[in-house]
Amino acid sequence: MTAPIRIGMVGGGFMGRVHRMAQRLDGDYQLIAGAFSSDPERARSSGKALNLDPARVYTDFTTMAEREAAREDGIHVVSIVTPNHLHAPIAQAFIEAGIHVICEKPLSISLEEAMALRALVRRHGVQLLLTHNYSGYPAVRRARQLIREGTLGELRLVEVDYAQDWLSEAGSEGWRGDPALAGPAGALGDIGIHAWQLADYVTGREIDTLSADLHTFVAGRQLDDFAQAMLRYRDGARGRLSVSQVSPGNNNRLRLAVYGSRGGLHFDQESPDALWFARLGDPLQRLSRNGPGSGAADLQASRLPAGHPEGYLEAFAQLYRDFACSLRGEAPPDIALPDVDTGCRGLAFVEAMLASSQSNGAWTAPAYPTD
Amino acid sequence: MTAPIRIGMVGGGFMGRVHRMAQRLDGDYQLIAGAFSSDPERARSSGKALNLDPARVYTDFTTMAEREAAREDGIHVVSIVTPNHLHAPIAQAFIEAGIHVICEKPLSISLEEAMALRALVRRHGVQLLLTHNYSGYPAVRRARQLIREGTLGELRLVEVDYAQDWLSEAGSEGWRGDPALAGPAGALGDIGIHAWQLADYVTGREIDTLSADLHTFVAGRQLDDFAQAMLRYRDGARGRLSVSQVSPGNNNRLRLAVYGSRGGLHFDQESPDALWFARLGDPLQRLSRNGPGSGAADLQASRLPAGHPEGYLEAFAQLYRDFACSLRGEAPPDIALPDVDTGCRGLAFVEAMLASSQSNGAWTAPAYPTD
Amino acid sequence: MTAPIRIGMVGGGFMGRVHRMAQRLDGDYQLIAGAFSSDPERARSSGKALNLDPARVYTDFTTMAEREAAREDGIHVVSIVTPNHLHAPIAQAFIEAGIHVICEKPLSISLEEAMALRALVRRHGVQLLLTHNYSGYPAVRRARQLIREGTLGELRLVEVDYAQDWLSEAGSEGWRGDPALAGPAGALGDIGIHAWQLADYVTGREIDTLSADLHTFVAGRQLDDFAQAMLRYRDGARGRLSVSQVSPGNNNRLRLAVYGSRGGLHFDQESPDALWFARLGDPLQRLSRNGPGSGAADLQASRLPAGHPEGYLEAFAQLYRDFACSLRGEAPPDIALPDVDTGCRGLAFVEAMLASSQSNGAWTAPAYPTD
Amino acid sequence: MTAPIRIGMVGGGFMGRVHRMAQRLDGDYQLIAGAFSSDPERARSSGKALNLDPARVYTDFTTMAEREAAREDGIHVVSIVTPNHLHAPIAQAFIEAGIHVICEKPLSISLEEAMALRALVRRHGVQLLLTHNYSGYPAVRRARQLIREGTLGELRLVEVDYAQDWLSEAGSEGWRGDPALAGPAGALGDIGIHAWQLADYVTGREIDTLSADLHTFVAGRQLDDFAQAMLRYRDGARGRLSVSQVSPGNNNRLRLAVYGSRGGLHFDQESPDALWFARLGDPLQRLSRNGPGSGAADLQASRLPAGHPEGYLEAFAQLYRDFACSLRGEAPPDIALPDVDTGCRGLAFVEAMLASSQSNGAWTAPAYPTD
Repeated sequence: MTAPIRIGMVGGGFMGRVHRMAQRLDGDYQLIAGAFSSDPERARSSGKALNLDPARVYTDFTTMAEREAAREDGIHVVSIVTPNHLHAPIAQAFIEAGIHVICEKPLSISLEEAMALRALVRRHGVQLLLTHNYSGYPAVRRARQLIREGTLGELRLVEVDYAQDWLSEAGSEGWRGDPALAGPAGALGDIGIHAWQLADYVTGREIDTLSADLHTFVAGRQLDDFAQAMLRYRDGARGRLSVSQVSPGNNNRLRLAVYGSRGGLHFDQESPDALWFARLGDPLQRLSRNGPGSGAADLQASRLPAGHPEGYLEAFAQLYRDFACSLRGEAPPDIALPDVDTGCRGLAFVEAMLASSQSNGAWTAPAYPTD
Repeated sequence: MTAPIRIGMVGGGFMGRVHRMAQRLDGDYQLIAGAFSSDPERARSSGKALNLDPARVYTDFTTMAEREAAREDGIHVVSIVTPNHLHAPIAQAFIEAGIHVICEKPLSISLEEAMALRALVRRHGVQLLLTHNYSGYPAVRRARQLIREGTLGELRLVEVDYAQDWLSEAGSEGWRGDPALAGPAGALGDIGIHAWQLADYVTGREIDTLSADLHTFVAGRQLDDFAQAMLRYRDGARGRLSVSQVSPGNNNRLRLAVYGSRGGLHFDQESPDALWFARLGDPLQRLSRNGPGSGAADLQASRLPAGHPEGYLEAFAQLYRDFACSLRGEAPPDIALPDVDTGCRGLAFVEAMLASSQSNGAWTAPAYPTD
Repeated sequence: MTAPIRIGMVGGGFMGRVHRMAQRLDGDYQLIAGAFSSDPERARSSGKALNLDPARVYTDFTTMAEREAAREDGIHVVSIVTPNHLHAPIAQAFIEAGIHVICEKPLSISLEEAMALRALVRRHGVQLLLTHNYSGYPAVRRARQLIREGTLGELRLVEVDYAQDWLSEAGSEGWRGDPALAGPAGALGDIGIHAWQLADYVTGREIDTLSADLHTFVAGRQLDDFAQAMLRYRDGARGRLSVSQVSPGNNNRLRLAVYGSRGGLHFDQESPDALWFARLGDPLQRLSRNGPGSGAADLQASRLPAGHPEGYLEAFAQLYRDFACSLRGEAPPDIALPDVDTGCRGLAFVEAMLASSQSNGAWTAPAYPTD
Repeated sequence: MTAPIRIGMVGGGFMGRVHRMAQRLDGDYQLIAGAFSSDPERARSSGKALNLDPARVYTDFTTMAEREAAREDGIHVVSIVTPNHLHAPIAQAFIEAGIHVICEKPLSISLEEAMALRALVRRHGVQLLLTHNYSGYPAVRRARQLIREGTLGELRLVEVDYAQDWLSEAGSEGWRGDPALAGPAGALGDIGIHAWQLADYVTGREIDTLSADLHTFVAGRQLDDFAQAMLRYRDGARGRLSVSQVSPGNNNRLRLAVYGSRGGLHFDQESPDALWFARLGDPLQRLSRNGPGSGAADLQASRLPAGHPEGYLEAFAQLYRDFACSLRGEAPPDIALPDVDTGCRGLAFVEAMLASSQSNGAWTAPAYPTD
């Protein structure tokens, strides 16, 4: 290990804590600056709690980007953990300052914003990691690898759903319930985009058109708390995607199943050390993280022997670890880290879902960037 | 027990064996007649294998209906286990002979046929049981009861899917692959109608409109091997239904989840002794068959203590047992046995699915009978 | 099928109902006689409920054995479902009358009694089936086959336990709590002997010595409600056996794990369609009933496709079906039906457990018959 | 957060990496010194890889203890991750230098050594954490709390087993196979002591006597690869403990079940976010980490919402986090961190197991310290 990568943070709350744990786990990063709040007193106390130099604690991200860019010992990279509507302006400020970006999903609240960021990233030559953390799970990478190797044959069905129950009643939404802060998509933007990315990442297949139905069950809520779609893929596969935040008895039940002409697999985020796999005509197998048949892509993302459970934070940290390799110019295995392109494609998916649902389920093509 | 009910059978094959086991398990029926084949030699040998009086073994169902109706010791009821296209004509023959009918699903291959049978049943005063066997599971009845009692609050989401893999390759379809024998629906008619009935039975809610997508993945196959739909219920609930016979690693993975404002539940046909239930804000519970909190509806369908697994045949036999009560004029608990109305509604569902898919997913209302 | 085998029953209660369902499921037997009670009125009403000829309903087993033996159309076989203390005298009466016997476990309440029955069986040339029903599960037979084929290599560990909770409080024991009726073993005699037989059947290995500890937790109870032992096998394997009827949250949690130098397997009676199997160094596999890799021994015991659950009654019925083959002189696959030898060996195990526990865990050899 | 606690490390290998991740996750520690190898070149390169000041990288622990104790900015605490035989001498050196100790289990390779450390700890007033990491799982703490509150009633049965397969063949033992480095216990010392501590921690009950059987299956291996015991507790409960490193298909299958007069619970380390709990007569519940009914003891050990899996590293880090509170004089919830007393009691257990097995299973009392 060379010296840790100097990192700063903009934002706070629960996701801020998650990002900090992910930064620390493997020792690749050192948090040295932050804009945790626009309130000076809260910013100061957050900085103190994190043992930061008070001179590196800011109350606005613009100043932070400028000053950190100007320092010899300035941050190499910033992590953005604010409400959605600020992702793009903050990312823009740091990209323009030549600072790499780690951004919470969604990349922005519109495809237009996302495409603008994409252009900026290309222009400034910085790197951007979008923390679609589920792609950090070894089992997910193994699934991706099995499909890339053709183990499943011709893909036919892609089924992904994400069920939670924490919005079954009104009142817990916070900024996620406010379209001005969250953007136009509720459950869709919060977890639907994760479900989409998981399927996208594992299958490497693109949705041709989708037919969507969004709904809000809880009275007074402004954004969808349920969204589903039927999917048609470009290569002829079919699929479905369904997300709900009003499904009692589910916490973070994100599940993916993929079926092809020669085999099938399924994954459940709540038991992430297992990938279930069957070759057509053979018994169902439990592929364990770091167990028999593991390959480079998943072993590299595994820290512990099989049977010593890894979880959400390890997957999150894996993205940070892979991104550290990338920042250092080292070559990790072929892992396709979620980046600004992923972010644009995700927004294209979200906007296609919204448009289709507004058109009563008309089959709609996501406007994936083509250049 | 009074003397067993005299029963005859038309058809054979695997479902014939299942029905015979279901008839025998509880001792309510005695098989004494059958039309197992139009080939005299095969009919004779089947009858012999079943220890039947050769005089009660027929080579056509018309003769069987006439002669059995004419005998003092004729059958009370016939079970029909032929390919789909014969269900309606055979049922008609026995109904017109005044003989009760137990019929495999689907009731017929068109709604029109089904409605005609419904009129006949009413006219002749016979009883008809449609063997939607999953409604014989105690856990399914308990789920229905919990919903009827309002335990889940206002229903919001209904999710049902049925995945198999036995048609992942061409060649195993048998009569199920021939539209002339199976009707116009493939996976949809074979297992989709079961998925629909399970959701219909448990929720007691009616689909207002659906948007469907059917597909055939295996080259040369004439009927769909995959079907899915988004659902909108009359009371505002939403849902989805998905069936596939090309999902490697799945045998008979029929699953139902129902979520409401105050709780949720899910059921997996491959582990049928458990119903998973959560009140919003409480831990997830495993409700075991014949375990704590069981009620009349599910206890009546349970033969063994909790932990001694019951399965598919017991659920099948339960329909037979309940129907025996009905034939004898005894009153079982409020169990809503699948009947000719269920059959008509199922065909209305199937035809709505076909129509919607042919219209590229246009939202379509099932033509449920209204009188 | 030739005509059904004529069967009679002595005893009643829950196990009587189970045996009758098992007799009926496959159509091999017809119940035509019984001694259900020594009370004439109760005997009569039981016979009527079962639709029996009143002349074939008896109030004592001695008369029944004599009269049925004397009839041209007398029973071929009797099933004994009484409390334990009557197994031996009833079996003796029917054996001496030349009638085959199906007997609930344990065969008797002492090894001495069991050995006497064994001599009688040999002398009279009748067949005796001991209903250790768990050996009727296809997964159990497949486990046995894998071990016989050497798939697990040299056996090292055998672990079996059976946990229930229905005796967690005093008062539900019925005759099982009375040493005069149940014999000297409580949980040990009721479920310990099942656990022993399951391990014995699957592994085909004999216990050399065991060290046992029995205990009674519930005040006022006369017999053990918990029993455990460490096991040493003749070929060097080690093991453990543990049974409890005071383990809240368990219904009939009978589990077996066997490990060898080249692989391991485990089975859980509450999910009997699955056998979990791993070759050393390969992923864990779920071997499904009637799924890939099934062999003659388990296919023959399977009635339904994989994924349509079979359960306790099907396993029970399988013993009846296999015994019907045996009675008819047909050769079923090599299935080693539990018989009078199994019964003697089981009693030898029980008595070794009792003796070891009374000697504070002294290593004790079961007095398995040697001729 | 005040400044991180300065920590050093003696040892390396896999457990060294685990400890370093655990130190980093919550940001409470900063690793600034280490004796990673007695080979100067390897020590230097390890230090460099960890970005340490070369002056703080040592080649022997004695020098490290002296010099660090002498520095103003010396380490507050050392973590010992060497083979077992060095735990005691290294701990002694740091304790005598007034430096707190975090020590891998087992505390030492003999009870005598452990008792000597205990006296030293008392004399020097330092704190010692023994990393029995499974006691860091929230579900384990919740189980402990349920039992302390009497929810299970009078305890009756304690069942713990730990199955692995990585020593199914000869050759992978490393220092764990050498009695001079590992001590006299093989599987027993490696994982048996974890199983013991898990049961000890959760139940708070002490073993009165045990009857043990140890065995070595793999030819040429010097230490046990299998150990089991029957347990009798001081308050009348019974139990069993079983560990194996030769059970194919198992990775780290550590399971605990506890049953009492009013309820039962079980825990599986491979699915550590769940605690299964049943009140006698009520349905089985899945108590989720951070889910309904969580209490102070487990919430404090939880970093993420229910359904976002935590695992082994989080539990490990929890001990570090709790110990940081303790070092800072803050009061964490009543969590009973494993300490030098735990270490002595663990060695007493190990020695009782060895003695009992050597006496052919004689009931033996662990020589738990009594003052």
